[in-house]
Amino acid sequence: MTPASHPATGPQPSNTASDGAAQAPLFIAPISVRWRDLDAFNHVNNANYLTYLEEARLQWLQQVHDWFSEESMPVLAASELHYRRPIAWPAALHVELRCTRLGTRSMSLAHRIVDAADPDRLYCEGHVVLVWINPASGQSVALPATIRAAAARPA
Amino acid sequence: MTPASHPATGPQPSNTASDGAAQAPLFIAPISVRWRDLDAFNHVNNANYLTYLEEARLQWLQQVHDWFSEESMPVLAASELHYRRPIAWPAALHVELRCTRLGTRSMSLAHRIVDAADPDRLYCEGHVVLVWINPASGQSVALPATIRAAAARPA
Amino acid sequence: MTPASHPATGPQPSNTASDGAAQAPLFIAPISVRWRDLDAFNHVNNANYLTYLEEARLQWLQQVHDWFSEESMPVLAASELHYRRPIAWPAALHVELRCTRLGTRSMSLAHRIVDAADPDRLYCEGHVVLVWINPASGQSVALPATIRAAAARPA
Amino acid sequence: MTPASHPATGPQPSNTASDGAAQAPLFIAPISVRWRDLDAFNHVNNANYLTYLEEARLQWLQQVHDWFSEESMPVLAASELHYRRPIAWPAALHVELRCTRLGTRSMSLAHRIVDAADPDRLYCEGHVVLVWINPASGQSVALPATIRAAAARPA
Repeated sequence: MTPASHPATGPQPSNTASDGAAQAPLFIAPISVRWRDLDAFNHVNNANYLTYLEEARLQWLQQVHDWFSEESMPVLAASELHYRRPIAWPAALHVELRCTRLGTRSMSLAHRIVDAADPDRLYCEGHVVLVWINPASGQSVALPATIRAAAARPA
Repeated sequence: MTPASHPATGPQPSNTASDGAAQAPLFIAPISVRWRDLDAFNHVNNANYLTYLEEARLQWLQQVHDWFSEESMPVLAASELHYRRPIAWPAALHVELRCTRLGTRSMSLAHRIVDAADPDRLYCEGHVVLVWINPASGQSVALPATIRAAAARPA
Repeated sequence: MTPASHPATGPQPSNTASDGAAQAPLFIAPISVRWRDLDAFNHVNNANYLTYLEEARLQWLQQVHDWFSEESMPVLAASELHYRRPIAWPAALHVELRCTRLGTRSMSLAHRIVDAADPDRLYCEGHVVLVWINPASGQSVALPATIRAAAARPA
Repeated sequence: MTPASHPATGPQPSNTASDGAAQAPLFIAPISVRWRDLDAFNHVNNANYLTYLEEARLQWLQQVHDWFSEESMPVLAASELHYRRPIAWPAALHVELRCTRLGTRSMSLAHRIVDAADPDRLYCEGHVVLVWINPASGQSVALPATIRAAAARPA
């Protein structure tokens, strides 16, 4: 199913250019599909796509100094996925990461899941909204400066 | 919710009437949180929310005659989640299901994850788009008549 | 590695007849199978059985005061499962818990996964060895007194 | 249930010294730990070890012609794991596979989970018993000849 076939009254994908492949990715994470990622319909289960995105996001964050501390940690506020084609096992994937919005206390990261050997073979695209909070209070806090710097710098 | 509509101070709920709690739910599924649903941040992992939605959706579909056949099966085309508060373990949840759009070949199901004892305590809301396809060809097909009938009939 | 090669000071598998249903269970946990527990062979995946056991074990531990502290936490040293029949979805299960060995620093818990409506319908039996360790040093420590007391007291 | 109580016709645990590293492995599968494999104790959850073993086993089987057909498929009859040290994230692992028993209708596969860079750094060892069954009847059937040949041939 494509955005074009989507009726106007239904949910609209946020296919602004910024979600897409126009800019260079901030980070590309290789992901090996595991057989256990398949469900009883014999393709990768829809929830596992979020795990692939998370793995890419955390590998990127992991490289950033002070992305997580006792005073400040990221939590997911929203996620949006568009499933473009089923993923089989075995498969080698790339998850591309792009920063599409950098707020004071939150940021949006767009993700594309593509074939590792063919980045034009798109399996899924979507984005997540991350908010930094104080773990003790649950209140949102300013993005760490190291994150702001890293998000502005393509890989 | 789109990056553009995001106010600078934080993520905003997409509380359009259709996603919300205005109409009676089609189905309510009880979900017991498992300890393994927690991640290293000690709250339920973001991907598990899609598993809760899936469980509710399939329990509902399970009741419908002919929801799945050799000629026609549902696949997920899109998902959108807004995480409202963290979920701890142990917890007893309800997933409420509402049909917010009934197309020829696809439908949108809104979900609310609430506390089993207090439906006003909202953990997550979102929706998914389901498309029925022919498993052999991958082409979209008409929604089964039994699904159309069931989607129009609140629990 | 075999039971025989196990050093005397380490955790010992409880390979005794008491793994079975002879004594009253310490605890019985209800488990609802989720559709996502199925794998591409359309039955509950073998790894999920350990998740069912873990859920039962932690629900039991949860009731015990001081089972987990900054000085002392349980880790799994060994697991052994015998898969008796496939589990389908949907299904309501009971996980029965019995203590089959109570050591100074470790204990063995036998588990039976049975049908919630028919405890003679056995899906899996097995046991795990739990060792209490100091999280900082990784060294084994004495079992908490509350655990020893709880393990000696059937539900 | 213990090995001793196992009826002679059923699958037998292969509790022999050959579980170890004496013979050359049949197959070595690289596994990347995912952050989601961690649980709330911040190390890889015990159930995920079985997923790592499964991934290695299926990658090996995948190379074998006719390992799975409409008349004959493998199911897990038993698993036994000894957890030797916790696994953190990120980590690159190797799962080594050895055949320790080749029966008429079943086989035992020993597994070692080691560090990809240091095979002497052992995280877990264990074995599983696989039985081939007829999916329609559930009855055990003879091992496919291709499996017998592959199991006798180190990588």
